[in-house]
Amino acid sequence: MSEKKVRFVYADNAATTPPHPEVVREINKYLTEGWGNPSSLYGKGRDAKHAITDARERISSHLGCSPNELYFTSCGTESDNWAIKGAVSANRGRNHIITSAIEHPAVLNTCKSLEKQGMRVTYAGVDSDGFVNIDEIKSAISEDTLLVAVMLANNEIGTIQPIREIADIAHRYGALMFTDAVQAVGSIPVNVSDLGADLLAMSGHKMHAPKGVGALYIKKGTKIANLIDGGGQESKRRGGTENVPYIMGFAKALDIACDRMADTPGLIKMRDRVISELSKIPHSKINGHLTRRLPGNVNIAFEYIEGESMLLLLDMAGICVSTGSACSSNSLEPSHVLLSIGVPHEKAHGSLRISLSHDNTDEEIDYILEILPPIVERLRAMSPIYPGNQI
Amino acid sequence: MSEKKVRFVYADNAATTPPHPEVVREINKYLTEGWGNPSSLYGKGRDAKHAITDARERISSHLGCSPNELYFTSCGTESDNWAIKGAVSANRGRNHIITSAIEHPAVLNTCKSLEKQGMRVTYAGVDSDGFVNIDEIKSAISEDTLLVAVMLANNEIGTIQPIREIADIAHRYGALMFTDAVQAVGSIPVNVSDLGADLLAMSGHKMHAPKGVGALYIKKGTKIANLIDGGGQESKRRGGTENVPYIMGFAKALDIACDRMADTPGLIKMRDRVISELSKIPHSKINGHLTRRLPGNVNIAFEYIEGESMLLLLDMAGICVSTGSACSSNSLEPSHVLLSIGVPHEKAHGSLRISLSHDNTDEEIDYILEILPPIVERLRAMSPIYPGNQI
Repeated sequence: MSEKKVRFVYADNAATTPPHPEVVREINKYLTEGWGNPSSLYGKGRDAKHAITDARERISSHLGCSPNELYFTSCGTESDNWAIKGAVSANRGRNHIITSAIEHPAVLNTCKSLEKQGMRVTYAGVDSDGFVNIDEIKSAISEDTLLVAVMLANNEIGTIQPIREIADIAHRYGALMFTDAVQAVGSIPVNVSDLGADLLAMSGHKMHAPKGVGALYIKKGTKIANLIDGGGQESKRRGGTENVPYIMGFAKALDIACDRMADTPGLIKMRDRVISELSKIPHSKINGHLTRRLPGNVNIAFEYIEGESMLLLLDMAGICVSTGSACSSNSLEPSHVLLSIGVPHEKAHGSLRISLSHDNTDEEIDYILEILPPIVERLRAMSPIYPGNQI
Repeated sequence: MSEKKVRFVYADNAATTPPHPEVVREINKYLTEGWGNPSSLYGKGRDAKHAITDARERISSHLGCSPNELYFTSCGTESDNWAIKGAVSANRGRNHIITSAIEHPAVLNTCKSLEKQGMRVTYAGVDSDGFVNIDEIKSAISEDTLLVAVMLANNEIGTIQPIREIADIAHRYGALMFTDAVQAVGSIPVNVSDLGADLLAMSGHKMHAPKGVGALYIKKGTKIANLIDGGGQESKRRGGTENVPYIMGFAKALDIACDRMADTPGLIKMRDRVISELSKIPHSKINGHLTRRLPGNVNIAFEYIEGESMLLLLDMAGICVSTGSACSSNSLEPSHVLLSIGVPHEKAHGSLRISLSHDNTDEEIDYILEILPPIVERLRAMSPIYPGNQI
């Protein structure tokens, strides 16, 4: 047996993040003391209600919206579904949606299910850096367009889209602008008015809150039907007794994330060090734009090898990264995002996403940079298609 | 200031329950260690996946179904919405739903929203004990009926419905049987085959798991569309990264609840003691059936006074109970359940629900029985409509 202790380096923060200790503490407070039903009229219920009112105010202030424009949900995916299906249900006069080819499955599969019900959907392409083709949006949009749904930051390659520009186009035709900001909120400053968004989805577990809580911003006056009908919760717009502990954890996580944004230059420096070091490996190429990407996102293609084999060997060394996104990691298909930006099939299969957070340290980066290049070399040595290996 | 220390007696377990300490411990394990994304391919992800597989198996075995018939959701309300809207979306040939007048708002408001989209809904009445009128179901049902949705146990008066009998009628016409078992699962034995249910909704926070986790049983072969589209989670039927900590807490809570069912006679004894003692108060009447109700449920009308005033005074004495259900407690309308069983408006307004759990003690019952009767007396002394008070 090896004497060397395997380290644990988590570099898959775009898939999920470990809950912050302060977030865990906050959740425990509401699991063990603040567990009243916010709809109950006695003290224990009112305390729970006050708590989520406070959480809503804090999150809203980070986003630059009013607390009564923010609705808690169970996750980013629910928020995505609600935004799109709710807008369609409430605005039956228009029959067209524009989205992008690199959206999250929560948006793409929602659009596909609406197509089956007769909606027309345009999937706008992206350029080789992952930016949505604005001209395609301009030529597809019409008075029949109900909604334009383009994500703020991509989950695989981290590209940050020019949402404001897209929103202005949408509004010129009376269409709604929805942005899936699941990867962006907590990572970069997000202000709903600056973006011009009518609907904006977010999730807790990408910012060190747990999986199982999200929110949807609905601009005042936006017509949207309920996805989940029920009691009087969330101003009668989202039924279900509120998940008070996680809502409090979510608010705490965003408070912390916004504080830590002051350290963004440090995170970018780590990211760029990974990019520049890994780029030195022959036959490698960074996927996505070099700078207009999320501060912690690295996505790199290594030719002639399989991402999954790299992932396996990295896992054995205690390093967690991913190929594509976690949400579709059990699929054998290459990433739809990488194919959309023009990465050929075989290079898409050999791509890795390394997503860093403020919790990562320079020593961890050293470790990744020590472990990964020999793995690439080792796998290439075994690859029958690597130049020179052919018999 | 009073020297007397106010006790805290929680007797509103139908609204929500305090998470069990073992459940909190389990949740913490997965917040602090088992926080991997179950879709991730490395060890930390696989561990999370194995954990929820184990939870699914344990919950399924309690319900007598196969693990691949159980889908995790964010709450009972989501499960209710999914069951009904999903069945309607997937079975467009039939246009009629039968439900009961005393369902939870999650079912009633879902049916109302489907009515707006052209579905025909029959709201079957109930008798004075709260049992659904089977003859009404028989005369309303036809080959056009898609779904019969009747709750297993009522959240306000605890009545346990003869679901098997109703399911047999539904199946004779090729309709699906859905039962909202949110109040039942964890409280009484629930077996999906014995009930003849095709769809069954449940929730964690009524059984000492936290608010924010539920499940839907979907009998193999049942045609049902997704409510929340997304990645590959829950066999592609419910998108959104799984809330691993709460799913584990849910399984733990149901394990404990099923163990504690051995003590049901003790809980019933407590309930019946409350019923018999409070019934001695003049002008009071138990709402619902005396025995065919949930083991912990008491619902009693006190004539000539307001439930909300009682609730307030009880709260000041540290006792938590409710008027009607928490989900509609901010509404000034009297309970639709009590009105449906024929309780007149003014008596419905003067009704209290006391819902006990295995955590309640005989001493707590003593305290409730010591505090409540004088409160009724005091409020009646101030009531201008109480016989003898008229000037």
